[in-house]
Amino acid sequence: MIKNITGKIDFIESLRGKKATFMLALSNTATANIDGITQAGIPGKIYLTPTLDCEFLCSGEVRSLDIIAETPKGVPTPALITRAVHLLNPYGDIEILNLGLEVEPKLDYFKIHNFDIKPSESIDTGAKIDALALFEKAVEFGKNYKCKNDYIILAESVPSGTTTAYATAKALGYDCDGKFSSSFKEQPDSIKEKTIQKALENIKDKQDLFEIIGGVSDNMLIFNAGFILGSAYNHTKIVLAGGTQMAAVLLLINSIVNYMGAKLESGNISLCTTSWVANDNNSDLKGLLEMLDFDLNSYYSDFDFSASNHPALKLYDEGEAKEGVGAGGALMYGFLNGLNKAQITRKVEEFLG
Amino acid sequence: MIKNITGKIDFIESLRGKKATFMLALSNTATANIDGITQAGIPGKIYLTPTLDCEFLCSGEVRSLDIIAETPKGVPTPALITRAVHLLNPYGDIEILNLGLEVEPKLDYFKIHNFDIKPSESIDTGAKIDALALFEKAVEFGKNYKCKNDYIILAESVPSGTTTAYATAKALGYDCDGKFSSSFKEQPDSIKEKTIQKALENIKDKQDLFEIIGGVSDNMLIFNAGFILGSAYNHTKIVLAGGTQMAAVLLLINSIVNYMGAKLESGNISLCTTSWVANDNNSDLKGLLEMLDFDLNSYYSDFDFSASNHPALKLYDEGEAKEGVGAGGALMYGFLNGLNKAQITRKVEEFLG
Repeated sequence: MIKNITGKIDFIESLRGKKATFMLALSNTATANIDGITQAGIPGKIYLTPTLDCEFLCSGEVRSLDIIAETPKGVPTPALITRAVHLLNPYGDIEILNLGLEVEPKLDYFKIHNFDIKPSESIDTGAKIDALALFEKAVEFGKNYKCKNDYIILAESVPSGTTTAYATAKALGYDCDGKFSSSFKEQPDSIKEKTIQKALENIKDKQDLFEIIGGVSDNMLIFNAGFILGSAYNHTKIVLAGGTQMAAVLLLINSIVNYMGAKLESGNISLCTTSWVANDNNSDLKGLLEMLDFDLNSYYSDFDFSASNHPALKLYDEGEAKEGVGAGGALMYGFLNGLNKAQITRKVEEFLG
Repeated sequence: MIKNITGKIDFIESLRGKKATFMLALSNTATANIDGITQAGIPGKIYLTPTLDCEFLCSGEVRSLDIIAETPKGVPTPALITRAVHLLNPYGDIEILNLGLEVEPKLDYFKIHNFDIKPSESIDTGAKIDALALFEKAVEFGKNYKCKNDYIILAESVPSGTTTAYATAKALGYDCDGKFSSSFKEQPDSIKEKTIQKALENIKDKQDLFEIIGGVSDNMLIFNAGFILGSAYNHTKIVLAGGTQMAAVLLLINSIVNYMGAKLESGNISLCTTSWVANDNNSDLKGLLEMLDFDLNSYYSDFDFSASNHPALKLYDEGEAKEGVGAGGALMYGFLNGLNKAQITRKVEEFLG
């Protein structure tokens, strides 16, 4: 079942039975190399997580490493959920946005959009992103992009992406302390907070909006903001499949639109996340979305692993992992096309053997 | 599940959720009238098999005879599988290639491509096919054909087609003894071998490639070779749905391309068969495919009737029937669109009452 966070159910109900392009935005930021900042991946190989997530989603195989991405506590990647839905009720297309990867996914036949973007640097010493150029590239891409299906599910895999999202929202002046999610159950606040603090201290007077976010953000946030604005020209329907990182994309859009003195027609944009994010006591997605100056229909997929006895999946229900690789949007797509919790649970369990 | 024979899984994974045109190539060769050479049909009415398969696939009815095609041992036609998938998850379109039928299928509204082709004669005395003219007609058709869906599943029903396929590959100089499949569990080697021996003895010095295959081949093999080469111009994705007969089509393409001194861009061509062919100890599909000079992604659909207690279906698992009417490609299409073994098994059982 799909439940509202903000807005009305109509937007998502109007997509029932429709085919979606699943678009997966991948990026590396060296912020993830800060010891203990994220648990989204294999220690020492965190940078591989988006590559492996993508390979698994598309091919069912993990090619750039011989084991599937797991956190140190053994939480399996949410890509399992995204892939399970694809097997049960396929997306119309999967397309990849390479927004700066250390290692390109090893895939033939799948559409990988390349933009010649390099991984960004760590925000504690400055991400060094040419944010305006990246944003303009993304707007252009969005304007020219023709969706082959009825709508786009826009997902992401960016290790330590909640840190850069939090830093971005804070740098833009949003009152967002305590509102951002984490891949951890017990958030290592000190490391994350200290990193963000350092990032914000690097901001200089007289820097404009794009110069500021170029230092504290990540490629995914900036590109997706541009892509969504560009797509708005074509009235393409987009579901942002994610939690607080996607909220940061929207806050960034909000700031850019205000900065430009424009007004956003947001009727074709929505967000859908997991129940683990929507019901998380340590973050506040709804609070973030309510800071937007435009209306937004947002949702969560009411799915958990209560129907499973698998210990690795139980960790989701215990808060050890919450979202990523568009899991919430994938579940939504499944529900909108007739799948139920039992089917999806069983398919995810099959991957774990 | 779909498993690799050669190549990588990516080609077929990129077709997940896509719609296919199911194209069924039908032909008669008088070779099938040789006593005991095939069990693909009703004794004395073997020539009706492609007509009946086609009628059943398209309409659910067998119109040119009052009972459904069964072998003497009571093995039901693989068209049951192809039709079951169509009922559960329909092909985008079904189109028929009439490549020389004794009896045209009694169907309204379905697209039957007619090329004014006559059934070919028995290869033991010479098939008497104008192979070059047929091939050129097929290339032209392939070049002009616009696929209305995302890809083509190209299937066949040609009684005694493994005999003509074997003869064709052998005449082309491939080392293929023991590699061709049969509709029988215990292959009546003597009849088949003797027929092929006679066919090869008819080849005269100074005959060119097309003259040679015009004597030993069948219309389906030659037409499909041309059709696939013609379609390559349009970058149309094709899955050859069949076993060793479709391998013979590819070997024929290989020989023609080499004969013309050309090079084939084979990235849009693949093959998918059944597990009964892929795991058959009496033939060697993989060995045939490995003789190709071009790369090929090939697969089999990991399906059997272990979930059924129906004695007629058990005969498949015992090797009495293996492939035909694109059963392996149909199963692939089902799997790529979320169907599972239990659903397909149940639907096939429904036909048998």
